[in-house]
Amino acid sequence: MFEVAELGHTLSPRRYAARLPDLRAQLLSAHLALRSQKFPVIVIVSGADGAGKGELVHRLNEWLDPRGVSTHAFWDESDEEHERPEAWRFWRAMPGRGRIGIFFGSWYTRPIIRRVYGKARGVQFDAALDRIVAFERMLTDDGALLVKLWLHLPKKQQKLRLKKLEEAGRLAPDDWKHYKLYDKFTGVSERALRRTDTPLAAWHVIEATDRRYRELVAADVLLAALEARLQAPSSPQVATLAAGEAGGAQAKRVKGKVDRANSILSHLDLSGRLSDAAYKRQLAEQQGKLSRLAWAARRKGVSMVLMFEGWDAAGKGSAIRRVTQAMDPRLYTVVGVAAPTDEERAQHYLWRFWRHLPRAGRTTIFDRSWYGRVLVERVEGFATPAEWDRAYGEINAFEEQLVTHGIVFAKFWVHISPAEQLRRFNERQIIAHKQYKITEEDWRNRKKWPDYRRAVDGMIRHCSTEYAPWTLVAGDDKKFARIQILKTIVQRLEAAL
Amino acid sequence: MFEVAELGHTLSPRRYAARLPDLRAQLLSAHLALRSQKFPVIVIVSGADGAGKGELVHRLNEWLDPRGVSTHAFWDESDEEHERPEAWRFWRAMPGRGRIGIFFGSWYTRPIIRRVYGKARGVQFDAALDRIVAFERMLTDDGALLVKLWLHLPKKQQKLRLKKLEEAGRLAPDDWKHYKLYDKFTGVSERALRRTDTPLAAWHVIEATDRRYRELVAADVLLAALEARLQAPSSPQVATLAAGEAGGAQAKRVKGKVDRANSILSHLDLSGRLSDAAYKRQLAEQQGKLSRLAWAARRKGVSMVLMFEGWDAAGKGSAIRRVTQAMDPRLYTVVGVAAPTDEERAQHYLWRFWRHLPRAGRTTIFDRSWYGRVLVERVEGFATPAEWDRAYGEINAFEEQLVTHGIVFAKFWVHISPAEQLRRFNERQIIAHKQYKITEEDWRNRKKWPDYRRAVDGMIRHCSTEYAPWTLVAGDDKKFARIQILKTIVQRLEAAL
Repeated sequence: MFEVAELGHTLSPRRYAARLPDLRAQLLSAHLALRSQKFPVIVIVSGADGAGKGELVHRLNEWLDPRGVSTHAFWDESDEEHERPEAWRFWRAMPGRGRIGIFFGSWYTRPIIRRVYGKARGVQFDAALDRIVAFERMLTDDGALLVKLWLHLPKKQQKLRLKKLEEAGRLAPDDWKHYKLYDKFTGVSERALRRTDTPLAAWHVIEATDRRYRELVAADVLLAALEARLQAPSSPQVATLAAGEAGGAQAKRVKGKVDRANSILSHLDLSGRLSDAAYKRQLAEQQGKLSRLAWAARRKGVSMVLMFEGWDAAGKGSAIRRVTQAMDPRLYTVVGVAAPTDEERAQHYLWRFWRHLPRAGRTTIFDRSWYGRVLVERVEGFATPAEWDRAYGEINAFEEQLVTHGIVFAKFWVHISPAEQLRRFNERQIIAHKQYKITEEDWRNRKKWPDYRRAVDGMIRHCSTEYAPWTLVAGDDKKFARIQILKTIVQRLEAAL
Repeated sequence: MFEVAELGHTLSPRRYAARLPDLRAQLLSAHLALRSQKFPVIVIVSGADGAGKGELVHRLNEWLDPRGVSTHAFWDESDEEHERPEAWRFWRAMPGRGRIGIFFGSWYTRPIIRRVYGKARGVQFDAALDRIVAFERMLTDDGALLVKLWLHLPKKQQKLRLKKLEEAGRLAPDDWKHYKLYDKFTGVSERALRRTDTPLAAWHVIEATDRRYRELVAADVLLAALEARLQAPSSPQVATLAAGEAGGAQAKRVKGKVDRANSILSHLDLSGRLSDAAYKRQLAEQQGKLSRLAWAARRKGVSMVLMFEGWDAAGKGSAIRRVTQAMDPRLYTVVGVAAPTDEERAQHYLWRFWRHLPRAGRTTIFDRSWYGRVLVERVEGFATPAEWDRAYGEINAFEEQLVTHGIVFAKFWVHISPAEQLRRFNERQIIAHKQYKITEEDWRNRKKWPDYRRAVDGMIRHCSTEYAPWTLVAGDDKKFARIQILKTIVQRLEAAL
């Protein structure tokens, strides 16, 4: 793969100067056109040490409109980053729609370095690369334009370059150490590039020996990608088309009328009840356990994500309070999921959940969640069928990252019968401090019960994985529901500690 | 001060139950009314260990609308927090307008603990308290409603309570250690409360022995504060009135026609020029120095904030590029200050700058800055005279925190003559890749040159402090300007390292 980048390409100052003004004007005009577009651009600048990655980043910043671009270098991790799944640091740096993010270092850096230094075996390396492919697929499905640049430097050239940098005092700390592993590094990188070179996220290998050549080629690649995307009949179309393929394949799985008898939810036994006395006793018992376990988790740096979904008036809020009562307020945060802010709207729908992941030893409780994508957004038509259909896989991949990182994760669907919901709606309209909880919207949603039931069924079917199973909570009796939830959390924590 | 909270107040279950439903309904209705208001509410819950702070936080969360409240516990610092000025962690947790933030722990915690453990002398403690008064004043001036609750527990009661918590497994790690210092803690806390008890940020000391009593009183205090503020003739008025006093006093300083002869800017010698050869030589020299210094700063964990203001077309952008060319892209971020996002608009105007402060060893470069408050916002009337006038003091306090934290800080006003600006505007309209930089707005701004000159004069007069002096850059010759800027940065870094 790198042979094509050892041909000795150079560009004379004269030809460079002749081409530059036009290229800059075109690049800038494409960038300005991007502003009004609803997709983000991610430019990955990677390659060998000394290949001029830093210089290229400078140059791109010079040639683009500084107001629409931000550069992120992924280097040493902060503890806040280390305490969360690896992708968190990339999510927090994602450019919003209409903006360009230049990533100096990326999700490739760590897998490649680990493999080169023998800290990961080949099979682990391949698995990491496959996860990258899925991750990039998710970004491009959402409309992101990915431009992946690899600056290649032949071995001799690298040595020359590092010496020059050293003389100028510009050498980064690990550069010489990496040089000694040149051959290994090249082999590992080639494998990474081959395995992650996909139609919507293709690699561009650029010969980096000559500054003028590599800069012009990089700018050309970026320009071509921008222009192709901007000139597409309808830009979002690209994403929709791509998603359409996957959607088509998956659609078969979910199609076919899920009638009431077939519904997973209809099989849930809602008859569970607890007497006041039994509830009081069990509540105290479970809360006591949870309290101790939460402190133990804190000491061991184990974090937890709890997620609550359920019908309106199913009792999510009051169940969450029974959980939080048992925990020191320093140990948890409750995130109520409401309408997204404009910073959130400018990002992939999972971004707003990534930003709330807990630090080590802490808990984040989501009151409603990323499943909104396949529930309300599906039912109300805010997401296209292709979008909500591919969300199942995206959500599974997201939750897998939580669990792989060692986060204790539980997700609850609090279920009630339509009759019980009606009773609670009516009750809410009478009690003063509950009136604010019942709105016209709740009544409207209630009419769509069958649509929601279908959506919930699909969600449970596709997203009940071995690592993150759904806990279906029988909620017609609030006391019974709360104890089920507390017991589940206590069991998960006990198993983890 | 605490004597009033040792009177043995209790509340019978009967009276508690009788009062509760009304109180909850009122609290909730006040909270719902807050949603449409343009001010944030900060509730500080502090006091002795074992006084029930955690329980109170739970209760407030239960009684308020969960969608409009967020709770933040300030406990152990992450390294990202540690590497920035102390207030950064509070800024990142600030509630937006229309929302309630419950702060469990606050800016009082560390000064009090440090004083109790003898790590700060009395005079340092007092200075810390004075900074808190100024900080809270800034928040309330901006419209924030501050509700400061202190739960007081007599010594005997604290012992009983800690024992109970211990039995229930709910004791926080340092609780017994703190108990041994009860008397010291009480004395230090009293001093803190007295010194920071101001009209717009008053303390409410609540006797905490009886759960029902302390919870109802706390809710009453919060309710009264909310209602008073909501019923004020025009809510923002409170802030404006308060600011008006200060504004009136300061206004004298800035009033009086600043005529051209008196202008600081008019005294700046703009005749400096550099030949191409001298420029090339000095650029290479200064960039080499900066490159080495940036790596040295990285090794020592010294961070840097550079800030650029100046006339349109003064050459800020190209000067910034000469700085960044010398630095590894992993070491710096450029923040171009444009229109705020809605998350930013919902906060104090300084919030959006706090969020970009660099980690240890890194540099943030602001292209335009917080001075927008006293420049464009003043001239265009986006900020009231009271608002921009008090901003001088707020900005000085902000910059002092940067410098006190050890951040190397430089701020540049890049100055050009009106004639030179005109020449550059015309040039921009001709060169293809510069056209995007010149808009109708630039021409409009140019017509307001005298207004801006007055604003710049005021800014330099009020915000050139010994710890953060303005560097006025003679910019009619771009080469000359760039070298001045590079030299200044190099000098600052050399002095710091």
